[in-house]
Amino acid sequence: MNKFAMYGKLIAHPGQRDALVQTMLEAADQLDSMEGCELYIINVSENDPDVVWITELWRDAEAHAASLQNENVLALIQKCRPLIAGAEPIKLRPVGGKGI
Amino acid sequence: MNKFAMYGKLIAHPGQRDALVQTMLEAADQLDSMEGCELYIINVSENDPDVVWITELWRDAEAHAASLQNENVLALIQKCRPLIAGAEPIKLRPVGGKGI
Repeated sequence: MNKFAMYGKLIAHPGQRDALVQTMLEAADQLDSMEGCELYIINVSENDPDVVWITELWRDAEAHAASLQNENVLALIQKCRPLIAGAEPIKLRPVGGKGI
Repeated sequence: MNKFAMYGKLIAHPGQRDALVQTMLEAADQLDSMEGCELYIINVSENDPDVVWITELWRDAEAHAASLQNENVLALIQKCRPLIAGAEPIKLRPVGGKGI
């Protein structure tokens, strides 16, 4: 299996989580038509009021890398920067299961 | 949105990760026909050779809880126990995005 997966943990500055969620939902809209992006789910943490988790699944690493060259995606990443205190990606290799 | 999501981090005993992956893939097969289970993706960590990550998405918390009463799922959980050194669930509340 050649798919690329990642959990993106984003730590918002205090009080900025909801603004960050809105911007990430805009990013998800941009990715709706992007071929190769299979999952881009925005979650909030049940335990930490500042944390947003993004569930990503891509056809392959190339599709993921290409998205980071997309003008609209780059503009949204810039828009998010002032809202983000930290980011911790968890890189995964999917092997199978339901929904993949 | 009423969906229930979780990242399940499973830490295998040294040398047991692949056996754990196989058993979790069997669990995913069981869940294939389970209504209410939308995603159950088995991933291995790119950085830690003992870690397996499960991406879960359920229609709601009740569907998730019901799965833990299913005989076949319970049997597989028992089968996994000796392979697992530790488990750390990350509980999430999905808010939107692509693929949900």
